[in-house]
Amino acid sequence: MTNITKAAIDSIRSLSMDAVQLANSGHPGTPMALAPVTFVLYNKILNYDPTEPEWFNRDRLILSCGHASMLLYSVLHLTGFDISIDDIKNFRQLKSKTPGHPEYRHTPGVDTSTGPLGQGTANSVGMAIARKWFADRFNKPEFDLISYKVITIVSDGDLMEGVSSEAASLAGHLKLNDLIWIYDNNKITIDGKTLLSFSDDIKLRFNSVGWNVLEITDANDTDQIEKILSDAVNQKSKPTLVILNSIIGYGSPNKQDTSAAHGSPLGEEEVKLTKTFYGLDPDKKFFVPSELSQFREQKINEGKEKKISWDKLFDNYRNAYPHEAAELLTIINRELPNDIPECVKIFPDNQKIASTRELNGKVLNTVASHIPWMIGGSADLSESNNVKLTGKGDFSPENYSGRNIHFGIREHAMGAIANGMRLCNLLPFTGTFLVFSDYMKPAIRMAALMKLNVIFIFSHDSIGLGEDGPTHQPVEHLAMLRAIPGLDVFRPADDKEIEAMWNYTLSLRDRPIAIILSRQKIPMINRSKYSSAEGTSKGGYIIADSENPTAIIIGTGSELYLCIDAFEKLKQSGINVRVVSMPCLEEFDRQNEEYRNFVLPPEISNRISVEAGSTLGWNKYTGDKGVSIGLDSFGESAPADELYRYFNITVERIINEVKSLYAQ
Amino acid sequence: MTNITKAAIDSIRSLSMDAVQLANSGHPGTPMALAPVTFVLYNKILNYDPTEPEWFNRDRLILSCGHASMLLYSVLHLTGFDISIDDIKNFRQLKSKTPGHPEYRHTPGVDTSTGPLGQGTANSVGMAIARKWFADRFNKPEFDLISYKVITIVSDGDLMEGVSSEAASLAGHLKLNDLIWIYDNNKITIDGKTLLSFSDDIKLRFNSVGWNVLEITDANDTDQIEKILSDAVNQKSKPTLVILNSIIGYGSPNKQDTSAAHGSPLGEEEVKLTKTFYGLDPDKKFFVPSELSQFREQKINEGKEKKISWDKLFDNYRNAYPHEAAELLTIINRELPNDIPECVKIFPDNQKIASTRELNGKVLNTVASHIPWMIGGSADLSESNNVKLTGKGDFSPENYSGRNIHFGIREHAMGAIANGMRLCNLLPFTGTFLVFSDYMKPAIRMAALMKLNVIFIFSHDSIGLGEDGPTHQPVEHLAMLRAIPGLDVFRPADDKEIEAMWNYTLSLRDRPIAIILSRQKIPMINRSKYSSAEGTSKGGYIIADSENPTAIIIGTGSELYLCIDAFEKLKQSGINVRVVSMPCLEEFDRQNEEYRNFVLPPEISNRISVEAGSTLGWNKYTGDKGVSIGLDSFGESAPADELYRYFNITVERIINEVKSLYAQ
Repeated sequence: MTNITKAAIDSIRSLSMDAVQLANSGHPGTPMALAPVTFVLYNKILNYDPTEPEWFNRDRLILSCGHASMLLYSVLHLTGFDISIDDIKNFRQLKSKTPGHPEYRHTPGVDTSTGPLGQGTANSVGMAIARKWFADRFNKPEFDLISYKVITIVSDGDLMEGVSSEAASLAGHLKLNDLIWIYDNNKITIDGKTLLSFSDDIKLRFNSVGWNVLEITDANDTDQIEKILSDAVNQKSKPTLVILNSIIGYGSPNKQDTSAAHGSPLGEEEVKLTKTFYGLDPDKKFFVPSELSQFREQKINEGKEKKISWDKLFDNYRNAYPHEAAELLTIINRELPNDIPECVKIFPDNQKIASTRELNGKVLNTVASHIPWMIGGSADLSESNNVKLTGKGDFSPENYSGRNIHFGIREHAMGAIANGMRLCNLLPFTGTFLVFSDYMKPAIRMAALMKLNVIFIFSHDSIGLGEDGPTHQPVEHLAMLRAIPGLDVFRPADDKEIEAMWNYTLSLRDRPIAIILSRQKIPMINRSKYSSAEGTSKGGYIIADSENPTAIIIGTGSELYLCIDAFEKLKQSGINVRVVSMPCLEEFDRQNEEYRNFVLPPEISNRISVEAGSTLGWNKYTGDKGVSIGLDSFGESAPADELYRYFNITVERIINEVKSLYAQ
Repeated sequence: MTNITKAAIDSIRSLSMDAVQLANSGHPGTPMALAPVTFVLYNKILNYDPTEPEWFNRDRLILSCGHASMLLYSVLHLTGFDISIDDIKNFRQLKSKTPGHPEYRHTPGVDTSTGPLGQGTANSVGMAIARKWFADRFNKPEFDLISYKVITIVSDGDLMEGVSSEAASLAGHLKLNDLIWIYDNNKITIDGKTLLSFSDDIKLRFNSVGWNVLEITDANDTDQIEKILSDAVNQKSKPTLVILNSIIGYGSPNKQDTSAAHGSPLGEEEVKLTKTFYGLDPDKKFFVPSELSQFREQKINEGKEKKISWDKLFDNYRNAYPHEAAELLTIINRELPNDIPECVKIFPDNQKIASTRELNGKVLNTVASHIPWMIGGSADLSESNNVKLTGKGDFSPENYSGRNIHFGIREHAMGAIANGMRLCNLLPFTGTFLVFSDYMKPAIRMAALMKLNVIFIFSHDSIGLGEDGPTHQPVEHLAMLRAIPGLDVFRPADDKEIEAMWNYTLSLRDRPIAIILSRQKIPMINRSKYSSAEGTSKGGYIIADSENPTAIIIGTGSELYLCIDAFEKLKQSGINVRVVSMPCLEEFDRQNEEYRNFVLPPEISNRISVEAGSTLGWNKYTGDKGVSIGLDSFGESAPADELYRYFNITVERIINEVKSLYAQ
């Protein structure tokens, strides 16, 4: 081990201990255990430019056990990223560059936000899928333009979470050999020894899903680490798991190899004892020896050279392949084509009846034909939810430029893989039934938190799916999704709203969207009689109106036509109402007050909302006097029409509720 | 194969085809494939009494691939359960006994509701855990009283879902040898061949997590099936996976072995062709040959004898071990001790400050000491969420009467395992951080749908957890849980509300509860100055009041004391307000109108809600004029106190909002 190596490893360990101690909060044990492997990664294995942390062809490093964030912050500091010792002293403080868990968009060098265990494993599979797709589409025999690898540090917690099994299974199936997971086998969890709950034969488990498995017997042996990691990088046909046998809290005389080293500061005295064990001055805090300043400069220069060299390669590529280079630049800059608003207009006027899932499938295909890097798929329901790209091929080891990903029946991994694909600049979409958004919730939340404009498509959005019954009928799911900060939930009512919705979707840059679709066929709105769908992009708009309306009926998605039917019948009875279509509450809420009051005038207190799902949240729009028609119980197994009658979500009910409001 | 066997298998297949055809909806392919194994199970392997489908020591059969429900309904009809041919003709019709997916409490012989893939696998692990616990606690050398086995039919979809990996890993670790999964290896999913997305070496995968693996090479070979299943039943130290190589839609000349046989009716013509292939009359529908009526009687008699024989065993057991027998009867009858209301009162008056997680841990332990069949644990956070039973031992292969289950970092399986435990009459509890309720959502939903009074405990319930930051700070989770029909969400404010909450919890019989707890310490309410906690059981109550109050402040959990502080300061300014504690919105909503209007008089429109989470849904209580103080964005990493100030959830804010309401 060179002096620099020893000094760097010691510094990672001591900075981590010191930062946790000063914050009086955090996880010192894993940084102490993994300092050597992490340093070897950043010194010998990874390609990056610390001054350009978003360099497209950089290797990705995911710390899936995000609680060990100080490990990352320390090594990023030492290798020239824009993280200072002062930043490290501000560990876990408000608005610091060094939050409790690594946060994407917040800290240079953090490639994805981690913390909820397992997410990082599936993110990394998404990144490795993107890697294969980019290489297949853009690399040429003489240009190895896209060559990044994806390395993930995973803990026993990550491997216990089911999502990691889903992700590993798919990665093995797809033979993603640019993917490496380093398993921190420290045999300790918060509650004690992992053996309390975990006795998987990890080697066999990963072999069973098509991975290589290598092992580093001593987490402090940097030569062995370098050799094994190099072997892993050179694997040609499978992803690789590297089992790293480590000691949590290594060096702490009283806490190493126990759960006491996991999630609490070691204590001032123990920190001193541990520094003494490392051969450091026990009284120095946040100390980095001066030779590491020079090393830092060296890593910056190395990084810049790598980036410059890649830029040159790209320039030559652009000369030889101008069309491909232009497309790649568009992707790198996260731009989209300008012709989207026109291209989404595909439906003739006066279509009669259709399910929004089939209509959505058509626009999805049109849009995707304009955006070659729109790639996605379904958790085995593409025949049913129409989330597939006709004629664009399946993504597989035989065809990495295919654009349909068969995620298998793995909704959770699908969501987190899509996040990883978006982190590498693809524009991903996913598909399943709305009720199974439950399985994906942790990943949808992470997309919203990271401000990733992933497109989550959900069909079979209510009791309207019929006979499959309550296990498959979403009730509470619209409310669940609407409660997630930073996610738009869009439930279009007909063909024209779907066109407008896709235009809206492709205008998003920092928000995911959940697109909510019916299984059942519904009548299209007669746009020559009622409003155009232009207002769709405002989240809510007046679709049918009377002179001086005295009541408002608000509907979404497959219930909007019921509202319009009721409107017509009320009109015949001489009752003047307004119908508002509200496909996206979040976007409506973002409109200015003038517009919102124009659509929902405060003086009209007779209001009814109609949506075949939980009424939770609708009071905000219907007000004290208003009524919400919906479903606050589980569904039933029966044909859809019968269920609408049984649960009393009908035109007659709407009419009666309106009349009752006047009677009050 | 005997004539009866052939007739029964033919009948399962033809009933399934006919029912799906008549309903014009459903999944015929898997019943056709699995008719032989299912018949062998019910004829040779399983112990049950069709006239007593709730018999406690019956073997449990879970159809985890619930879409194949006709398989179950057909065999239950043939073996004497209370399902008639008319019931089968009503397949998938409103309120029929034969809904689209099997529903617990709805159809005799259905041991758990299934449909969302993977849930059944983890349910079965919970049942097998219960099996071990009961046997260890109640069996005696001379009384093999509890001897049931748990058999689950799983599909490729079940095995792709991560929750099945979590469940299998824990089952292997715990050496649950009474557990058998039969894997329907038909190599087809909805989107085509499983090989599109799935190439796990299943034998290796299950070996890696400590399972035996056996194989049935031909799903139509009933002798082989019987032999292999008998071998599986006789395994003494590990759970067993039986790989059953089957052909989906077996017998259908044009659809077998394709995804076309999966989820749609075969078509009238194809049904006829298939019946002809089986050697049946193609024109007969819903036909069961008369010899099967006799067989049905025989199965009823056999079942009754088994039950009678077990009842005799139990009577002898009761004579020998009256205390144990009494306890077991209490469990079988799902009764609870009568002394709960008193036993939960453990806290002295005038405690000053505490976190609700630690307080809850104390009452949990007290309650559990009165209910020996309260068993549960945590997804590796018991040191942090206080969800553990002191001195009650760990559930492990060395000690199956231990009452602390180390679920590992497997929240999803934990939830579904708890459901399985409850289905076998244990009273289970689970623990993790509130943010990870995301991972458990599918299982919590199933608990609510099945009306299982599982106790889901969640700590670290807001930004109050502090430095771990936005990945760990729940925001939308209270709204998510409150949207689930049939789930109570309880967020107590202090020691006395926790006592009352546990009394409430143990009064529940048909609802799960989510208990929501703070990480941070908060002041206890001075009950000699303010109301007692008696109103807690009503979900909401007046805790502090003025004469003729003109504004209402509603708070929950860790924000209630802020409301009371504001109340005092407003009083000093001569402003008369009321404070309402609202720990459980669902229970408050169930109170009669008189009580609700007493607590929240309609004439007081100045209302403020205070809760450190999404404001979604609070409009219902605050009304048109009201204000909801909460958090509709993600959190930040910083100390908790600072975050409350940063997000402006403070006494000053409450005071200012109240004053603003008066100014309007």
